[in-house]
Parts: sequence; C-alpha cells; structure tokens
Amino acid sequence: MTTPIEKLHFTSDYMTGAHPRIIQKLMDTNMYATQGYGDDEFTTSAEQKILKACTCPNGEVKFLVGGTQTNATVIDCILKPYQGVIAANTGHIATHEAGAIEYGGHKVLSVPHQQGKISATDIESIMQEYQSDLNKNHTVMPGMVYISHPTEFGTLYTKKELLSLSTVCHKYHLPLYVDGARLAYALGSPDNEITLSDLSKLADIFYIGGTKCGTLFGEAVVLTQKNMIPHFFTMIKQHGALLAKGRLLGIQFDTLFTNNLYETIGQNAVSYGQQIKETLINSQFTVPFDSPTNQIFFVIENNLLAHLAEQVEFGFMQKWSDSESLIRLCTSWSTTEEDTNKLLQIIRNLK
Amino acid sequence: MTTPIEKLHFTSDYMTGAHPRIIQKLMDTNMYATQGYGDDEFTTSAEQKILKACTCPNGEVKFLVGGTQTNATVIDCILKPYQGVIAANTGHIATHEAGAIEYGGHKVLSVPHQQGKISATDIESIMQEYQSDLNKNHTVMPGMVYISHPTEFGTLYTKKELLSLSTVCHKYHLPLYVDGARLAYALGSPDNEITLSDLSKLADIFYIGGTKCGTLFGEAVVLTQKNMIPHFFTMIKQHGALLAKGRLLGIQFDTLFTNNLYETIGQNAVSYGQQIKETLINSQFTVPFDSPTNQIFFVIENNLLAHLAEQVEFGFMQKWSDSESLIRLCTSWSTTEEDTNKLLQIIRNLK
Amino acid sequence: MTTPIEKLHFTSDYMTGAHPRIIQKLMDTNMYATQGYGDDEFTTSAEQKILKACTCPNGEVKFLVGGTQTNATVIDCILKPYQGVIAANTGHIATHEAGAIEYGGHKVLSVPHQQGKISATDIESIMQEYQSDLNKNHTVMPGMVYISHPTEFGTLYTKKELLSLSTVCHKYHLPLYVDGARLAYALGSPDNEITLSDLSKLADIFYIGGTKCGTLFGEAVVLTQKNMIPHFFTMIKQHGALLAKGRLLGIQFDTLFTNNLYETIGQNAVSYGQQIKETLINSQFTVPFDSPTNQIFFVIENNLLAHLAEQVEFGFMQKWSDSESLIRLCTSWSTTEEDTNKLLQIIRNLK
Amino acid sequence: MTTPIEKLHFTSDYMTGAHPRIIQKLMDTNMYATQGYGDDEFTTSAEQKILKACTCPNGEVKFLVGGTQTNATVIDCILKPYQGVIAANTGHIATHEAGAIEYGGHKVLSVPHQQGKISATDIESIMQEYQSDLNKNHTVMPGMVYISHPTEFGTLYTKKELLSLSTVCHKYHLPLYVDGARLAYALGSPDNEITLSDLSKLADIFYIGGTKCGTLFGEAVVLTQKNMIPHFFTMIKQHGALLAKGRLLGIQFDTLFTNNLYETIGQNAVSYGQQIKETLINSQFTVPFDSPTNQIFFVIENNLLAHLAEQVEFGFMQKWSDSESLIRLCTSWSTTEEDTNKLLQIIRNLK
Repeated sequence: MTTPIEKLHFTSDYMTGAHPRIIQKLMDTNMYATQGYGDDEFTTSAEQKILKACTCPNGEVKFLVGGTQTNATVIDCILKPYQGVIAANTGHIATHEAGAIEYGGHKVLSVPHQQGKISATDIESIMQEYQSDLNKNHTVMPGMVYISHPTEFGTLYTKKELLSLSTVCHKYHLPLYVDGARLAYALGSPDNEITLSDLSKLADIFYIGGTKCGTLFGEAVVLTQKNMIPHFFTMIKQHGALLAKGRLLGIQFDTLFTNNLYETIGQNAVSYGQQIKETLINSQFTVPFDSPTNQIFFVIENNLLAHLAEQVEFGFMQKWSDSESLIRLCTSWSTTEEDTNKLLQIIRNLK
Repeated sequence: MTTPIEKLHFTSDYMTGAHPRIIQKLMDTNMYATQGYGDDEFTTSAEQKILKACTCPNGEVKFLVGGTQTNATVIDCILKPYQGVIAANTGHIATHEAGAIEYGGHKVLSVPHQQGKISATDIESIMQEYQSDLNKNHTVMPGMVYISHPTEFGTLYTKKELLSLSTVCHKYHLPLYVDGARLAYALGSPDNEITLSDLSKLADIFYIGGTKCGTLFGEAVVLTQKNMIPHFFTMIKQHGALLAKGRLLGIQFDTLFTNNLYETIGQNAVSYGQQIKETLINSQFTVPFDSPTNQIFFVIENNLLAHLAEQVEFGFMQKWSDSESLIRLCTSWSTTEEDTNKLLQIIRNLK
Repeated sequence: MTTPIEKLHFTSDYMTGAHPRIIQKLMDTNMYATQGYGDDEFTTSAEQKILKACTCPNGEVKFLVGGTQTNATVIDCILKPYQGVIAANTGHIATHEAGAIEYGGHKVLSVPHQQGKISATDIESIMQEYQSDLNKNHTVMPGMVYISHPTEFGTLYTKKELLSLSTVCHKYHLPLYVDGARLAYALGSPDNEITLSDLSKLADIFYIGGTKCGTLFGEAVVLTQKNMIPHFFTMIKQHGALLAKGRLLGIQFDTLFTNNLYETIGQNAVSYGQQIKETLINSQFTVPFDSPTNQIFFVIENNLLAHLAEQVEFGFMQKWSDSESLIRLCTSWSTTEEDTNKLLQIIRNLK
Repeated sequence: MTTPIEKLHFTSDYMTGAHPRIIQKLMDTNMYATQGYGDDEFTTSAEQKILKACTCPNGEVKFLVGGTQTNATVIDCILKPYQGVIAANTGHIATHEAGAIEYGGHKVLSVPHQQGKISATDIESIMQEYQSDLNKNHTVMPGMVYISHPTEFGTLYTKKELLSLSTVCHKYHLPLYVDGARLAYALGSPDNEITLSDLSKLADIFYIGGTKCGTLFGEAVVLTQKNMIPHFFTMIKQHGALLAKGRLLGIQFDTLFTNNLYETIGQNAVSYGQQIKETLINSQFTVPFDSPTNQIFFVIENNLLAHLAEQVEFGFMQKWSDSESLIRLCTSWSTTEEDTNKLLQIIRNLK
C-alpha cells in the first residue's frame, strides 16, 4: 500500500522507525508475558544499564512515552504550586508544547537565549532580582531550571557552562533539569564535552531521549537520587504518561544501552550534519548558529527555497527577511551516506 | 537474558506484545520515512477503515497512546470547566486513573453500579435532581456520561440498555462517551448485541481499545462528527498525548481493521473465558457477575487462593469475607488453548 | 430606594450585615491608612487574640474572604497533587462548591454521612482498604480529612467523636481540617463539647467562620503550627483569595475576639433554633436530624409548604416524598426574639 | 488601640477604607435582610446604573471581590483551554498575580511594553507570526488581549490607540479585556480620552475597579453582551470569587454610580499626582514615564531615598542604577491637599 517517499528526508529526526536491533528485539520478545507498568525484568535491566552508564548508582530511572509528556510530568512533579520554571525563550517547553506546562499550573519564566542556551549569569540575575523584590510574595517563585542539550538550535553547552549553571542552581536550591530529547546527537559529536556521568553529577534530573535517537518512542528520566519525587509512579499515571506494556520501553532502552549503542548511534548523523554545514558555508549560505550536532540552520533566498523543496524535505523555521527564510536540515541515526551525498550535491548546485 | 515465565498467565489482557500481523507490519515499515504526528498515509488509511467499519462517514478518528490518557484527554476536551462526568462508581475513571480526571479540573459524578453498568434511570434521576435543585448554580453541572463496554466487570450493555442511555443523554444534551478499552472482547462475545455501527449511532464519542486488544499500545478515539472537538490536535499535544511517530498508531490500527481482525481477535479469549467460568461454576465457586467476555470474577477461599497462586498468575480484586477473596482470571487474544486447558484442570483439582 | 423586606427571614445565616460593634469599628477606622495584604496592626492583633482564645501559641492565622475560597485554598495547599480529601458525601466541598476542589486538581473521596458526620471508623475503613489495595499506586491517595462543625445538618461532633477522628487521622498522617463556617453556633450551643482549644489540639487546621457569624465577610484560618503551609501567602494570592485591604478582616476578627464576642454571638440563634425545633416536634412535624444548633430541618407536606412560604422565607432542601419536602429554618446572630415568636406562632397554626 | 500612622502615605491607592458615602451606606443598610450571592435589589440597581453609565443596555455586570481574582476568573472563563492571553510584559497578570493565570491553565503571552502599553502593531505581529507558523498546532493559540487602563505605570491609552487595538482584536476574533483596577484615575485625568461608553464599545469585557477607587473592596466586571460567558455565576463560585453577602458589592457600586461619584472620585488624586510630577521635574528628578494619572514614578539617588523614607511612605519599584532607585509616589481619592503640600515641600527640600 505504501512505499517509501521519493524526496530526500531531512525534515527531522523522528521520521523513521527504530534502530534495527531494537525492532528486532521487540519482535523476538513479542509473545512473552510480563507484568505491566514497568514491573518487568527488561525495564529493571534497562534501568540498571542506564544508571551504570551514568555512573549514578543511587539514581532511579522512569520510562515515559514522549518528550512533551516527560517535560510536563517532570516539571509538574518537581515544582511546588507557587513556583515556575526558568527556561530559554526558545526552549521547547516555552514554544512547542501547546502550553502543557501551564496546563499543569506553572509559569515558564523565559529568558532571552544565546543560540538556544542560557547562562549561569542569567540565573544569577533572575534570582537576585527575585530575592531583592519587595513584592516577591506576589510573584511566581523560580523553582527549577530547564535546559536542553543539544538545544533546539543544535548547540551544545560546554562543560564549563554546565558546571557554572549547576553551581548557581545549587546555590539557589534550584533543581537543574536537562531535556535530552536529542542527547545521542550530543554524545555523537566530537565537540561535546558532557558525558552521561557529567550530567548525573551536574544536573539533578534529566532525560535520555529515545524517540529522536533510535527507539520507536520513549524517554528515560534519570533522577540522580532515588525517590527524589515521592509517588512519582502515581503522578506519571495521573498525567496519562504510564504505558501499560511498560516493558516496551524497557526493551528498547535495554537495547540502546547494550554494547554502547546509545553513545554511538548519533555519530553518523552528526558527521553528515557537519558535512552539510560545511557545504552550506562553502556555498555562501548564512549559517547563523554554529551547530556541532545533527540540526543545521541556514538562511536561504525564497526563490532558491522553492527549488530546494522540489527535491528535499526540510523544516521551515521562520521568515528571516522579506526575501529570505531560515530553514533547518536535520539528519538522524537512520540517515544514509548516499542520501547525504545527494543532498550535498543539491546544495552545491543551488547557487 | 529473559525467558518466558513458567506460571500460567491469566492476570490481565496486556501481558504480551502485539498480534503477529501487527508486529510484522511494524517490522516491515520500520525504515520508511514519514511525517510525524499522524500526518502520514498509514494513519489516514486506518482512520478511513475505522470509519467504514463504524458506518460513520462524517466522523473523525484520533489515535492516542493509552487508556487513562485517552479518558483524561477526551473528557477534559468535552466538558466545560463547570461540568463533571457521570460514571459508575466502579468506572475506570472513578477508581484506577490516579485522579487524572480531577487533575484536569473535573469532578466524577459517580453513580452506584449494577454489575459495572449504569442505566438510563440513573441518568434521569441525576438530571431531575440537578434541574430541580434550587442551588444548582452552586453545584457541578453534569456534562457528559461515561460508560465502558465491556465494563470493568466484563459485563455488556444490551442494545436496549444502550439505546435507553443514548436517548436520555440526548434528551439532556449529555454527550455519551464509551470507553472501549476491551471492545474487541465485546465484539468477540456471542452475547454482544452492540456493533461498531451501533456505537457510532448511539454514542457521541467512543474509543476502540488497542492496548488490550492486539496492539503494542494505542487507542482509537472515534468522534462521530468531524470537528466535534475544536483544536483537538493541540489539546492532545497539551495533554502530553501526541505520539511523535504517529504512524506507529496508524500502522497498528490499519492492520487491526484489515480483514476484520479487530472484530474477530477477541473470539478465542471470550471462548476460553466462558470455559473458565463454566468450570468454576461446575466446581462450586461463586461467580458474582455473569460476565460473557474475557474477564471472569469469582470468590475463592483464602487457603485455596494460596494454592492457586503457585501455578497461576491472576488479578486480586478485593477481600470478599474474612476467609474469602474476590479474584479475576483474564484471558486475551494471545491466550492459548493449551494454557486454558491447563487452567481448567487446575480449577477442577482445587476443591 | 430599598426597605427591609416584610416576610420573616429564616432562610440562612448570611442575610444581614455585620454585628453592630463590627460595622461601627469599620466606620471608626475607615480613614486610617495602613499597609495592605494583612500587614497591619489590626490583623496582627486579631491573630494574637485568636491564638490566645485557641490556646495555640505556636499557631498562625490567615484571613480569607469566603468559605468556598477558604476550603479550596487550604485543601489545595495541604494536599500533594496525587492526593484527595476525605469528606462526608453531604460535606460542603462535596456538594455546594461548584467543583472548586476539583478545579484545584483534587478528588473529594466522599463517605456516606451519618447526620452530616463521618466517623473514625469510616476513616479507618478507607485507609485499610487503600493500604491493602494492590493497585493503590493507580488510585487517589487519601491525603487529609475534611469535616464541618457544626455540620451542614446543624449537628455537632461530640468530643469523643472528634478525639477518635483525630487519633485515626494522626495514625495515618492525615491532616484533619475542620470547616467552621458556622462555628459560633457550635460554641453557642449548650450541647457543644468542643472548645476552640480542643479544636487547636485535635485538628491540624481549621477555620473560624466570620461570614455566617457576625462579620460582613471573612474566615480565619488557624494553622496549629506556624509555617505548616510554606509560602501560604503566595498561594492565597495565586488562588485570588488575598484581600488588598487586609485590615478589613483584621478589624472584624479583632472585634469578634474582643470581650468574648465570638463565643457568645451564636447563643441567641441557637436558643431560638431550639425553640423552633421543639415547636415543630410539638406540632407533629418530622425532624429527621436532631440539630442542637441554629439550623433546623423538618419535613412538611407540600400544601402546608405553600402556606408557610407566604409568611416566611426558608431554605428548600430536597423532595422528601411525593407529597412532602425537606426544608430548613435557619436563625442567625441577628435573629430577633420578636421574629422568632412570630415564626413559632405560624408553625403552631400550620397544622 | 490603633492610631493613624504619622508618616505621609503615598505608597499606594488601597491604604484607606471606603469613600464616606459608601461606608455610611453600608452602615445604614447593615441590618437589612436580603438574599445572598448578588440576588438583591442593591446589586440589581448597581448593575443598571453601571450599564447606563456605560451606555451598554445589552450588557451584564458581575461583582467580584478583588483584582487578581477578577483577572484570573475572567481570563479563565474567556479562554479556551488551548489558548493564552496576550499582555504587556509589565501587565499585572504577567508580574504580580503569583501565577494565578497559569494556575488556571493558561499561558500569558507577554509582549514588550511601551510605557506599560501595547499596540495594535504588537497584536498584528503576534497574530501574523502565529498564523504563518507551520507548527502552530503545537503552540499556544492567542485567545484574547489584556490591557490595563491606566497601565501599571499610570499611563493612558489614547482613544486612537484603543480604537486600533479594538480593530485588530476584532479582526482576529480576540476578545479585548481591559483591567480597570484604577479606572477612576483615568476618568479623573484631564488627559483621558476614553469614557465608559468608549470602553463598552471598544472592549469586549472590562472591569471597573473599586478597591483602589473608593470601595472597601470589589470590582465590577462589565460584559458588553449578556451571557457572553455561559454559567459565569457557577464559574465565579468555582474560582472562590463569589461573595455570600453579595449586596455589599451592590451597595458600594450603587453608591459609586450615584451622582457621578465614580467619574469624579479620582480627580483630586490626579491633580495632586500632577503637582507631584511637576515638582519632581522642577527639582531635576528623572521622571521616566509621563503619567497623567495618580501614580508618579521617578528616579532618586539612594542617599536621598533614605532621607525621603524618614518622612514619606512610597512604593519601591526597582534598582535603576548602582546608585539610584526607581520609586513610585501614589495618590488616592483619600489623599488630602494638606498631605500633598507637605510632600511637595519635602521634595523641594530633598536636593
């Protein structure tokens, strides 16, 4: 009935199914009967492997289905009712989650971004302003910090930047939460300085993205201390985020964390992304964010855009000027060298 | 690492993976690249097949991931903020959804059940009481009716009962919503009088359960009129219920609605369930609800319970008396004749 | 423009303005300039007097505007997101607050009432059932207990009953919250066994009703331990329950707790209520709840009802039988002996 | 016990009680018995007078208690769950309401302010961006516009500005809501171009502030069309915003709208405010916002600040530079000429 579509796909990193090892494992275990809701040995094994990969023996892992769901659930569970979450104004929770954080009753305290990132200085300023505000009892108290790594612009925090953020967060008792929807593409980047162990030490809670990094679906929330969120299971259920056949998440993440798959699955995508970026620069396109991962943003004249669109699917971001647009080309773990080479040739021929 | 567990599994209907045709289809389509969020041809095809099976050409189908999520999202989208949902006090939303309906701001207006069911008379009474209440502006307005078919006790509404409910709901402008988490086990029961087409005519909105009826996960929400819920897509996203790789739902339901699979997938489970019920009755066990589907409830002395538990996994429901418990044996589409026969023998030997 | 209405008023206890001493004090202090939001000396004085009257030196008092607002705010502040509040099915929060508790995200776990009351045994049963429920992680956890004293039926808890409730609540770490909307009519009843000091010892949090007990508006929430609710001020603001000119609450409660006014203000109302009750009984009316306070419920034939309604305003409660209604006559601190005598005569002449 | 405090009070406009005519009327009607919840003739009369003053015969008026409560209730009632409210980033709902809008589930879509105001161009930009966003189904839909008149900086919209805002709002089906917490100080300003009738024509819903404009408390919400918000009464109750003795609001607003009191009550305050502004300018203080109403903001060196604070109470706003602060002097309907003259002398002597 359906055949693969013919255009080149560089729209996003959630266009295909799962890594072959994962879909095979789901097939192999399909007729097993196990307890539901994550109370199965695959889930236990996945949790153990993740905690080991993170050097986080006292941690706890919960598996949820999708990114917005994970952000909404975690943030609602961490914050007190009178608190809000600090985030870049380009952060996923501030822009593309349809108000899921506010649906849970909390304000996103947004900060102007620097290439998708926020800094320790931003947090320091907010907290100084909050603490010196004579009317602070009438305002939303900053209660945690949200960052994404890689960011929505494909950029990466340096270890020094993350350390500074972590330090200021601890100073002000703000749990630091890292959205790792695309974490594999950080780990797959030569420029990345932050390991899973670093995240476990510097963040309080983070999630290891599956949906965009090789699974059919699923995000692994790492709480760096057990029971950091009391009754987390029930709150996951209350948020509609509890998968009945929880083992599906366990199986997928168990596979991702076997033989180092998660830490290598993003490498090709990043390599292809960087080739695209260099080719764009060589072709005199403006690349406003120097992304070292799998998302490449660039400015294109609208007449060229139409031409490109005949051959390639990409992500439209926003109007850049009256005659130009900002678009995104995005590779994934399933992008092939062949498709990448075709794309590079198309780019070279554009101008 | 993991091998199938040795006890007989009659705990619930979400212990195994997907129907072989479904998992195979997921495997076959795994490397396809499609648009996300349900904007793909598998999803379109699944929607069309479902609407056809329901004889509901003007309807609309949205695919969500799980049952609690679906109930919470649909109910929150249907109700006005000042309204609550009428349900049996044994309804899933009233008992086992961790307060997800209240999390969305709505009261569950619970009614004493009759073997898991509620009646048109119950609705009539509630509405009469509401409308004659001089202080009704200070109370929660009944805004919709929730029933499940089969119910949480495995019982079925007769067509006459559903027609009466539908009539009274329309009289009072109460949308009637049917939770079909186990709908395939109604369709697979010889006693069932209600077809998918009946549901489309008598209910306003219902969901066709996948998780318990052959898919890895997923529930298909049928709105019997297009655009019944404005901006439903965004509200699904806001509730954290939007699957990025939406096609996974499309593929599964497309398969379920090919060659009549959904309407037949529950037949064996029901047949085995009825054999279990008859064997229990023949063995002098009390079966308090006459379930014609795949869930069989019975009363067992606690000393026998321990003996049974050595060989069989089942669902513990509640204390029945000081020396007895109410338990549930549950078959599924993946239950085998072999396992059923072993169970029947164990039951016969119990007393 | 407006003149006092001519019928006798026994509809409720919030028909008139404030006790003369209170309205006079508001007049006398009208042009004072003070800080807003309760940061004024009247409020401080009122808090001190209340804590003294309650023998609760380590407590804290916050003043809110109305009853539903107070219940919704306090309950939302006490409960965790995954918890619900246990209450009688006739409790104000379960019936006449328009779903304000659910609006805050919480389920009211309702219990069948006994003349408006619930018992320690009820709590014990709920908690035993909850704790023995193998699926309790999928349910709403009982998180606090709500009672009203007097109840919505005018009945009173005995000291022994309250002690038992308090004991079971502490056993299960359930904060006990007492809605004292009509507390002055308990304190004014010879049958009342529970002092303000008892409440401070046996409840964890309660409110001293003003609106129905002599103020224009206002309820004084007594937290029996300081800082029991962190950031309570901000949460009151977030719930829209913070009065800008907070001193208006301070002035009113300061007056109520000067010269024992609060403890005596309900005495006449109770005395008149009891005379009405006795007259009803003597006149062969059915009085289904033996209320020792200011609300008297009785059953009346519908033809007599119409006759009564020509002369008296009362509260219609519900249909009692095809030919009878349950109605309420309610006195207040402002009810006069003259009006009461007129009412008694009307009752005597009814049959 | 308490005597008026000796410093000059220019902190805010809610420091004193009610206008003498209002407190007198509350005294005069104190012992009247009326129905609760606004079902009384004072409330009816107040509604009629307000609708007449607004030339809004098809409108409807509801009386709430406070400003944050009114904003939270109205905005939650107007917006659909998937919508947010556009407001200046200095708007009261964006800053000083403790997250009450988010508590109701909605995002405040904040826009950089221009002296507290937003413009039709801002709305046009937001809507253009929203409508051209290919991912708009994943974002919060702008659902209404909030402005305040006067703004939080005391500035006023011109009639042309309001007309433009109204036009663009209607173009995009965005209800325009005006927070009139200090509306009397607009009406009392010679620079004000916007009458109550203009508001009724150009806004869809607005509130006439009482708390800061002569009442003890209370805000009158004007819906320019009857039944614009279905079941508004119940939703007010659900938000904890329904006053039991509703007539207290009716009496106060009836008085405010008798003999033109509301339209004149702010005149002296504005006149004094302007004298203060001119004196500040003459004394070489920086006045960054040219407020034509009762709130005057200016920059003061911190050493002078301390000196001023010995004699005058004022509102501290924020740090302006390392050595300077931005503060507010605020007059009210109860400010006297004598106090104003004292303040002017203090200002003149400061430098």
